[in-house]
Amino acid sequence: MAIREPIRTGGRSARVQQSIHRAVCELLATQPRESLTVPLIASHAGVTPSTIYRRWGDLPTLLADVSLERLRPDTAPADTGSLHGDLLAWAEQYVDELGSEPGRAMVRDFINSGAACQCSNLLRGQLQHITERALQRGEQAPAADLLVDQLAAPMVYRVVFSEQLPSTAQLKVWVARALAR
Amino acid sequence: MAIREPIRTGGRSARVQQSIHRAVCELLATQPRESLTVPLIASHAGVTPSTIYRRWGDLPTLLADVSLERLRPDTAPADTGSLHGDLLAWAEQYVDELGSEPGRAMVRDFINSGAACQCSNLLRGQLQHITERALQRGEQAPAADLLVDQLAAPMVYRVVFSEQLPSTAQLKVWVARALAR
Repeated sequence: MAIREPIRTGGRSARVQQSIHRAVCELLATQPRESLTVPLIASHAGVTPSTIYRRWGDLPTLLADVSLERLRPDTAPADTGSLHGDLLAWAEQYVDELGSEPGRAMVRDFINSGAACQCSNLLRGQLQHITERALQRGEQAPAADLLVDQLAAPMVYRVVFSEQLPSTAQLKVWVARALAR
Repeated sequence: MAIREPIRTGGRSARVQQSIHRAVCELLATQPRESLTVPLIASHAGVTPSTIYRRWGDLPTLLADVSLERLRPDTAPADTGSLHGDLLAWAEQYVDELGSEPGRAMVRDFINSGAACQCSNLLRGQLQHITERALQRGEQAPAADLLVDQLAAPMVYRVVFSEQLPSTAQLKVWVARALAR
């Protein structure tokens, strides 16, 4: 089941959703992810399991939805004063998060729930923000899609498929390659 | 549970493994992947479920092991006479396979079973084979790792995370970029 669009805030349905999201976060803070079940989350949130099944369909989809909410950045990517610096700072933080145990679990949730697409839209949005800021500064900047192919893709591929965390030196090579004319 | 190293062929244990692999392939040919269970596979292969649990631990690991076996190429990548042609032919076939429904299911199995690393080793091995053949022809060739970053990573990223199949035109751009000095 695909993750649905966010519902309007403030209504009864939104409050139920928030209580379920909060229950997942609180449970994840105290026990391993593998031990989470729909009945446990429902009981913690004070709803029936069928409320969860009706809205999310299954556990991976609920977990992916919660991850997506936590992944949605509160703030814009750090402004270091240059496109090169912004990309490197963004890449270092992204690799840190994705390569952590919760980050890897999140990738599994996204892929199992069919929501990987929303995850990659968020990532592209951050790169778009960084390039637009560079253009406003008067710098030249490649298209966000080129940065996805030359920087984000090898980062994600190495973390997810070869289980290596790229070093800062490696990230610098990818950033330089993406910015080379 | 990680996939174990292949066991010696011919022994009793190897024959049991083959019968279980064959049962998975036969079942997959006639019914949807989601309907497969360990007891069903065991019954089809004429073994007890505990034989499967003992060797593979769980269903995703067994499915990933079978996928890995099928993924292991019988033949070397096609020889088109040039590095550029070999890479493009390899990329087109890889995208076709990975983007199919069984291909996507395979990626999920690999990621869920923690065997993604073996999958990426196979892929790197194919690129290594192509570059070594190019060097033998007297062509220049980049390191296999550069081809992983600049060609394989964006291919896999687009298929898995943005759910788009890259076009041949897009593959040509990545191949050209990877071969540009």
